Formats: sequence, structure tokens, C-alpha cells
Amino acid sequence: MKYGYSQRMANLNGTATREIFKLLSRPEIISFAGGLPASECLPEREIAQIASELLSGKDAMRILQYGTSEGFDDFRDALVKYVEKVGIVGQERENSLVISGGQNGIDLVLKTLIDKGDTVLVEDPTYLAFLQILNSYEGRAVGVRANADGLDIDDLTRKIEKHKPKLLYVVPTFSNPTGKTYTAENRKAIADLTAKYGVTVLEDDPYGKLRFSGSPVPSLKSFDQCGNIVYITSFSKLISPGLRTGVAVGDKEIIRKMTICKQGTDLHTSNLSQLIVKEYMTKYLEGHIEQSLPLYKKRKQAMIKAIDAYMPFLEHTDPDGGLFVFGKLPCGLDAAKLLPQAVERNVAYIQGSVFYADGGHEDTIRLNYSNASEEQIERGIKSLAQLIKEKIGGIRQ
Amino acid sequence: MKYGYSQRMANLNGTATREIFKLLSRPEIISFAGGLPASECLPEREIAQIASELLSGKDAMRILQYGTSEGFDDFRDALVKYVEKVGIVGQERENSLVISGGQNGIDLVLKTLIDKGDTVLVEDPTYLAFLQILNSYEGRAVGVRANADGLDIDDLTRKIEKHKPKLLYVVPTFSNPTGKTYTAENRKAIADLTAKYGVTVLEDDPYGKLRFSGSPVPSLKSFDQCGNIVYITSFSKLISPGLRTGVAVGDKEIIRKMTICKQGTDLHTSNLSQLIVKEYMTKYLEGHIEQSLPLYKKRKQAMIKAIDAYMPFLEHTDPDGGLFVFGKLPCGLDAAKLLPQAVERNVAYIQGSVFYADGGHEDTIRLNYSNASEEQIERGIKSLAQLIKEKIGGIRQ
Repeated sequence: MKYGYSQRMANLNGTATREIFKLLSRPEIISFAGGLPASECLPEREIAQIASELLSGKDAMRILQYGTSEGFDDFRDALVKYVEKVGIVGQERENSLVISGGQNGIDLVLKTLIDKGDTVLVEDPTYLAFLQILNSYEGRAVGVRANADGLDIDDLTRKIEKHKPKLLYVVPTFSNPTGKTYTAENRKAIADLTAKYGVTVLEDDPYGKLRFSGSPVPSLKSFDQCGNIVYITSFSKLISPGLRTGVAVGDKEIIRKMTICKQGTDLHTSNLSQLIVKEYMTKYLEGHIEQSLPLYKKRKQAMIKAIDAYMPFLEHTDPDGGLFVFGKLPCGLDAAKLLPQAVERNVAYIQGSVFYADGGHEDTIRLNYSNASEEQIERGIKSLAQLIKEKIGGIRQ
Repeated sequence: MKYGYSQRMANLNGTATREIFKLLSRPEIISFAGGLPASECLPEREIAQIASELLSGKDAMRILQYGTSEGFDDFRDALVKYVEKVGIVGQERENSLVISGGQNGIDLVLKTLIDKGDTVLVEDPTYLAFLQILNSYEGRAVGVRANADGLDIDDLTRKIEKHKPKLLYVVPTFSNPTGKTYTAENRKAIADLTAKYGVTVLEDDPYGKLRFSGSPVPSLKSFDQCGNIVYITSFSKLISPGLRTGVAVGDKEIIRKMTICKQGTDLHTSNLSQLIVKEYMTKYLEGHIEQSLPLYKKRKQAMIKAIDAYMPFLEHTDPDGGLFVFGKLPCGLDAAKLLPQAVERNVAYIQGSVFYADGGHEDTIRLNYSNASEEQIERGIKSLAQLIKEKIGGIRQ
């Protein structure tokens, strides 16, 4: 049978994210490739207890029956309170939509806005899966230059004027892949500029709560002047990715459109996941995050220490939170070509080039530190350093 | 803020399904509008026990962490066995994809195949949500005539030749909205014809297991000669809609493409939902369905009896399973215009016109009998009959 696939399929291939998840299942691999939260920080006991109580209590039937596409009202009310902590105030239930994880939120925003050929501005580099989902809508990503403070506002202005984009997508706190955080001034400038030009913004904040040093910065959405910013966050890094639950907050009109789109893609998010997250969020989340942060901090420090010890030639970021260090290999080494050899030595990472709107930057790599022990991090970085040294030796000879 | 919505949004409005779910929350309403399984048949006790065991056992961590887009391997293996009961044999794990309910399966098939302007053939009338999701891909639905045996094969042939469709979509067992079941001969003819013309078929089977009279008919997919038929089924009507879990079975190539699409829409189905359904399916499902069927049968009989008693003027179907009776109002009454008055009298249904590819058929209605008691069914139909009689009286005067 020869299928007549849609044109969008020509842009989609399952390589990076999905194939990486498969690698992770080999137990001998020390993986810096994924974006998994620390398994030690997933609260199995409390979730077991909550699920058991929910399913044997008065909520059982509303969990088992159909729900509405928006999500449960009481969960949405709790979520609107939850985002106040990142400075998003004055929102009502109708400003919120329960999503099946951050991926689902991205998909719904793009489905609501993007036609074939539409331009979306992204930080260069940006979240790989965003670029892939944009491909599925046959949209076009244009990279915006960035610096230590956030986006380069001059370049952003030029690109808004030149491309008249439908959307700007950013991960302003502990960005994927760089781990960088935009300053409050930079956020305000982005909010002002996009309001002026009427550009919708998608602020993706999966990692913001995982801050183990430095001071919190208010969300980009907290600087929103005219309702042009949609904020999404998920509980995948804080409670459990397997439950696939998050929230989108935005202007009521666009939230309603996203809800109609959600009705057609998964009808609604698992009711059981929604109420587990609601209960956990209310009872335990704050304390749980505080307890988790030292582990993330130690692992990041272990990675930075190992890099400095074994591969001081790697230019790299040093984030205050989140999951990733981003680095630049010496001598223009090609990270993608190096990967199979690294995997042979039981170390995995992702080549940085896939995070750039137009590719290139073949000498960059993203290293995840959250789901390996300090000992594994040291061993993995040492092993990777040895490989890189052999390659550099080869180049220099 | 004025948003630049995508063109697909012009085709989407949240009226029918979503707004109906909202109506259902008013407790005084006797609703024949939804498609909810009988709440009495949702196995809360067993699910509570399974969830508790899963989350405090060896599976806890694989439930809480990220999974793969395909779904859990052991669940997929069990699902491939499960579909053998509808005659789908010789399938391997790679022929299956876990989906977040039937809606998600429809979305993924359309995403994989449909470009703007592509034609999809559907039975006239067909599942409303299918038409809405097709709208979101800017595809075009063309209705195929049907008869008591299934699709009209001559009309199907003509329309394949004329429209060169990308896809044929059918619900061959206890169709939504008519409750009709295609004969085995009709299924074979559809399989032969679509194989000959190279048309992909989506067989949607959410209700097949809910047969309370007559003899089972093998699935359309069991007649598949060349891998052109994708079969989807969900556990929403058998275990719990709130868990959002089902399966797609098809040729490995198209399943792989659908998996790539799924990666971009919800990454994967809730791990907890997957394993609850796997455990329930293995331990309880067969016996549970047998225990549930008498209730569905009684409710359908109660509806048919009430219709015959109070509105003998309604032409209607009399299904052997599933959730719906489809009827035709007398004197060309407009079901959509009548609905607000019915709701004033605390009865709800859906106008049949929304199930037709090209609308029309304003005098048809879909009546759901699965989620109301026999007493409510009698009272609701009586009340609706009274309203209709008043209207007919008005017309005749």
C-alpha cells in the first residue's frame, strides 16, 4: 500500500527527541541527552496515596466519566492562583486551559495561529520540539540573536519589521538548550515591543521553579500590557512527566480558540492526572520543590566541575536552574558526527545544531545533568572528554 | 489585542459537542444528547485498587517518568492480542500505537494524511467530531449513501472515482449516530474496493464490544488485503472515558508516521492511564462487559418502548448495541429549532443535521440511552413527545 501522506509529513522525521528516548532505555548508557527530571524527585509515595484517596472518594465518578476540554473548574481556579507566584495576576478561570503537558500547549497555540508559510520568531537556539511542531504546521522559524541578558532587542525589532511574524516563541527562564535566563529589563522590552507591533508571544516556562541559585525574575507574561502573551507551564519537571499535565494562561479569546482546538486533538486531559496534580500542588508542591533543589544544584555543580577538570577547552554556560548546560566543542568538532562514537563509549548528549532555526553551529552540544548521579556525571564527562581529546589530537596531527 | 488566527479557525466553532457537555452538568436535565457510557458500569473499585497497586509497586517510576510516544511495549503487546477478538490477526507490536482516546486517533490519522482541500469520504450521516477534526485540517467531507447493510457500494465506487479521496472514514459497528452495523459482506466489499483503488480507510470502533443482541461481525480491518485499513478503538465506553486511552492498529509504515505526529501533539498518553487500562483489560474486562450489557439492553428497550408509546410518529432505528437511536421527526419539524424548547422542559438531544457532511436533514435527531435510568428515559421521551405533539398541532392548525 502506498499512502498519500500530507505535505507536512515531508518536514517531519522522528529523529532527535523520540530516538533519544529510546537510547535512554539501555541501562549502561550515561545519558546527558534527555530532559528528564531527577527520578529521585518524583514523589511516588504521595502520588500513590492521592490517587488511592481520589479513586475511592467522592471524586471517583467525575474522574472516570468524560470531562470538559477546558479541564476541571476547581483545578483551573487553583492554577490561576498558582501562576500568581510568577507575577501573573488578575486572571480568571476563563483565562486558563488545562493542557496535556507543555508539548500539547505548544501544539494548541500553533494550531490556533499558524498557516502554511507563516513566520515565527524564536531565540536562536531554541527548544527543538518547538521547531518540530512548527514544521507540522508548515510554518517557518526565523532565529533572533540573543545575548547574556536575553533577546537582542535591536535584532528582534528588525526581524519583527522585516518578517511580520505571527508569533514569538521564548523560554525566558533557564532556556532549553542554553540554561540562560532573560533579565527583567529584557522581558519588559520584549513585552513593550511585541505589544507595539501586535505580535502574539508564547512564553514557555517548564523549568522556572527549578532555581537553585540567583534571584527569581518575574515571568514575561507579568509585563503583558494588552493580552498578547500566552504563558504555558507544566508539572512534568516538578511532579511527574508521565501524568502529562500543565496549564496555558492567556487572554480569554485566544484561550477559547485553543480550547476548541483541544477538543479535536485529545478531547481533554486525563481527569485522573488533573486531580492528582491539583491535590499534590495544593498539599505538597512548595515544600517538595525546596527539597528537590539541592539535588539539582549538586548535579549541575558536578557537571561544571567535571567539565572544568576534564575538558577545560569546552566553552559552556553555567545556569542558575533548569536542566541543561550548553557548550561549544573545540576545533570545530562536529557534535553530530561524534555522537555515535560517544554512544559506543556509553555516553549520550544532543548535538546543539538541532536547536537552531537554520541549523549550523555543528560544534555545539547540550548536556543534561538532572537524571544522572554525581558519580555518573563525573564518569560520563571524563569519558566524553577522552573521546574529544583523541579527536583533537587527530585534527592537530 | 487582535490575534491573527489561522485559516482553519474559520471552520471551527465550539458549538455542538463541547457545549452539549456543558448542558449535561445541570442536574435537572434528562440528557439524551451526550455519548457517555453508563456511569453505573464504570468500575471505580477495581480501578482504585489497580492504581494503588501500580503506584506503590515496581511500576511506579516508569509511570511517573517520561514514556515513549508509541506507548508502553507491554501494553502494546497486550493490545495486539486484544484486537484478535475482532478478527485482526498477525499484527506485531510495531503495528500498534497507544492513543489518548478515539479523538486523538482520528486527529493523528488526519494529520498524517490530509492537506487543505483533500477529500475524505464518510457515511452520511457520520460522527460529528470527525467532521469537526477534518475541518481543522481544512479537508472536505463528501457523504456516501448508506442502506441497512452498510455503505451503498455503487455510490462508494462512483464517489471514489469522482473525488479520488485520501481517506474513507467509517464506524461500521453501532455507528454514531444511527446505531447501524454493516454486514460482513458489505465490509468485504468495502475492503476489496478500497484496496483496488488504493484508498486508505479509517475504521473507528468505539462501541463494537457493547453488543446486547444479534451476532458479532468481524471488523472491517479483518478483511484488509493490503494494509490500507487503520483500525482504532478506545476504552472510553468500556472502562473509563476520563482516562483517555485507546489504540490504533495498522500497517507499520503509517503507524510510524502517526507516532511522529503524536510526538508533537501530546508526546505520549498518560502512563498511569495506560497501565490502569492494561491491568483492567487483562484481569477484568471480558467479565465486566458481560455484566454491563444487560443494563445497556434494558435502557435501549426502555427508550424504544417509550418512543412506541408516546411518539409512534417517530421513524427510528433499533440497534443491537452501542449508545444511540436515530430518528426522524414528523411533519418536517426542525430539530435544532426545537432544542431550546426541549431544554426548557429539561430534555436534551442532538439535532441530526450536524452529522451530515453537507448538513440538511433538519428533521432528524440522535437520542442517547446509555446514561439515563429507565425511569428518566420514560419521563424524558414522554416530555419530548408532548412538545412535539404541540408543535405538530400548531403546524396542522
